[in-house]
Amino acid sequence: MTTDSPVLTLAIDLMSRQSVTPEDAGCQHVMIERLKALGFEIETLVFEDTTNLWARRGTDAPLFVFAGHTDVVPAGNLDHWHTPPFQPTIKDGMLYGRGAADMKGSLACMVVAVERFIAQNPNHSGSIAFLITSDEEGPFINGTTRVVDTLKARGENIDLCIVGEPSSTEYVGDVVKNGRRGSITGDLIIKGIQGHVAYPHIARNPVHQALPALTELATTQWDEGNDYFPPTSFQLPNLHAGTGASNVIPGQFNVQFNFRFSTESTDVSLKQRVTDILDKHELDYELTWTLSGHPFLTDAGDLLEAVVKGVQEVNKDAPQLLTTGGTSDGRFIAAMGAQVVELGPVNATIHKVNECVRIDDLEKLTDMYQHTLKHLFSE
Amino acid sequence: MTTDSPVLTLAIDLMSRQSVTPEDAGCQHVMIERLKALGFEIETLVFEDTTNLWARRGTDAPLFVFAGHTDVVPAGNLDHWHTPPFQPTIKDGMLYGRGAADMKGSLACMVVAVERFIAQNPNHSGSIAFLITSDEEGPFINGTTRVVDTLKARGENIDLCIVGEPSSTEYVGDVVKNGRRGSITGDLIIKGIQGHVAYPHIARNPVHQALPALTELATTQWDEGNDYFPPTSFQLPNLHAGTGASNVIPGQFNVQFNFRFSTESTDVSLKQRVTDILDKHELDYELTWTLSGHPFLTDAGDLLEAVVKGVQEVNKDAPQLLTTGGTSDGRFIAAMGAQVVELGPVNATIHKVNECVRIDDLEKLTDMYQHTLKHLFSE
Repeated sequence: MTTDSPVLTLAIDLMSRQSVTPEDAGCQHVMIERLKALGFEIETLVFEDTTNLWARRGTDAPLFVFAGHTDVVPAGNLDHWHTPPFQPTIKDGMLYGRGAADMKGSLACMVVAVERFIAQNPNHSGSIAFLITSDEEGPFINGTTRVVDTLKARGENIDLCIVGEPSSTEYVGDVVKNGRRGSITGDLIIKGIQGHVAYPHIARNPVHQALPALTELATTQWDEGNDYFPPTSFQLPNLHAGTGASNVIPGQFNVQFNFRFSTESTDVSLKQRVTDILDKHELDYELTWTLSGHPFLTDAGDLLEAVVKGVQEVNKDAPQLLTTGGTSDGRFIAAMGAQVVELGPVNATIHKVNECVRIDDLEKLTDMYQHTLKHLFSE
Repeated sequence: MTTDSPVLTLAIDLMSRQSVTPEDAGCQHVMIERLKALGFEIETLVFEDTTNLWARRGTDAPLFVFAGHTDVVPAGNLDHWHTPPFQPTIKDGMLYGRGAADMKGSLACMVVAVERFIAQNPNHSGSIAFLITSDEEGPFINGTTRVVDTLKARGENIDLCIVGEPSSTEYVGDVVKNGRRGSITGDLIIKGIQGHVAYPHIARNPVHQALPALTELATTQWDEGNDYFPPTSFQLPNLHAGTGASNVIPGQFNVQFNFRFSTESTDVSLKQRVTDILDKHELDYELTWTLSGHPFLTDAGDLLEAVVKGVQEVNKDAPQLLTTGGTSDGRFIAAMGAQVVELGPVNATIHKVNECVRIDDLEKLTDMYQHTLKHLFSE
């Protein structure tokens, strides 16, 4: 399928490839052919089951990166799709198919925006690069984080980065994500002494012991948030105790909790406060922590200014700056010290059946990316 | 295996039969032969998979009953038994085998005690009966409770009852159980709204909502108990919430709790108080109750007096009167309005491997039962 729109044609080409995570299914090859033609130096970095692309044009600082992923989540129940998920279909001004919004549409916009920018500014200042992975939707162990490690090891530092994640809610560019909350999970085992419910004096019910501490954890105000972040939130997603028998006092209580935390807290401060509460309640416990990501924030600087201006030149309104939502690969790049923002299509249908993007929005997003490059490198 | 002790020989005969609940395996037939010879009228009442025996001698009031069961719990891990569980074995003054203490030993003592009492008092006052079931260790649906229903339907009321459950702790007769706590279980489903942990404002975590209510339930003093009962106890044996994923707020929280309650509370009062607490905390919940038994108490009367004297004639000390421990079939008989006590062997090894009873204790228990009959019916 071809159209008279270069960005739509490229999006359709990418979406036709069944690149369910961690498969790339040739998507990066399509991008490589386009970027090579523009003078980008190409590196393909394969780690385990994951294919990553690092493509750079220029050697000067600052180094600006478009970051994204070619993998998509599985299609889900095919019976609920109105069109085949890997046969992109245009209907009523929308482009339907898996990856339309998350995020092959964005990849097409990035490539076309760069083509147009370079056509007008072949000798732009700074450097432009693409950091593309085939494992953002999966365990993200061999994707962006390992490319970042490779770059750091050779002293190649990213200064500015747009992640193409679908940041928008009603129309493209209404929201730019200028940071993300951190995420840390605690797996807690509270130990008691198993016994018969008829003889509670020779047992110790870990559920009874833990309830006041869990109540305190669930009702603590961890911080107030700030201008960019909502307050740190605590949730208990998983709890389990008991053998199933109604006459047995359980010997242990398994509790999992998760923090989504603002830049007003840190993993270190949260760990300490949780431990203090558990110790104050004199619990016998084991606690293991899994840090999924530190929070990051880009609250000023050249990049944010350029992106906001770029969006405003297309839309009437300035974008709203938010840090809500889950984690993204932006956290790995921000950890290098880079300024990172996320700008992409409307996220209403991502990870759902009948994923789609408004075709007009693809054109607009291309313009926003191109204007951003212009503000950064050609003035 | 025969011995020169009638009670030991009978215990061994009963224990040789592999009557794992709800099997009787011919045990009641052995008892029937002995009781027929004494002039008992025999009724075998089969309900579903359960065999019950009702044997009565005499038509006058008061009606005294020996109650018990021929079924036993499974042997468990045979590798941990020092002797085959269904080949009763004498060693160091102990009789080993499944059912030795719970409660084929008691059954042998009852039969021999009645034989001896009737030999001396062939024209005793009142009536003596046996109510024996093959399902006390199982779901106890078709056992004692259905025999009691049958008796009630025809206006045959039990006045006095000794249950042969192993009531003793250190030596036989050190404890007589003169009541049992009630037991009631609540299955509670607390409803919330499932969602992503990154968006807690559009979800509602039922665990967070329930914690203050559960803390209140777990720390409430339900009553103070009384001279015979410890305070009513509340336990949370089973809790579950969550999909297993650390990023999903659960949509519901399943909580099971159990009360063991004294005669200072009732099932009605406890249900009301629990509901009041749940409502006060404004929870959206479903609650279903299962009543396993009302509490009962025999704190005075001919039976208790006769049993205490009977025990004292064998031991130096009077028995301690307790209501601790799990439920027993005594609750069904007490519900008829009967005076009910439990007197049986030391319970240290019941439901365990290498279950055993001291042979001397079988002789003493026989004497205690015989003395009790004497105090009730021959003076």
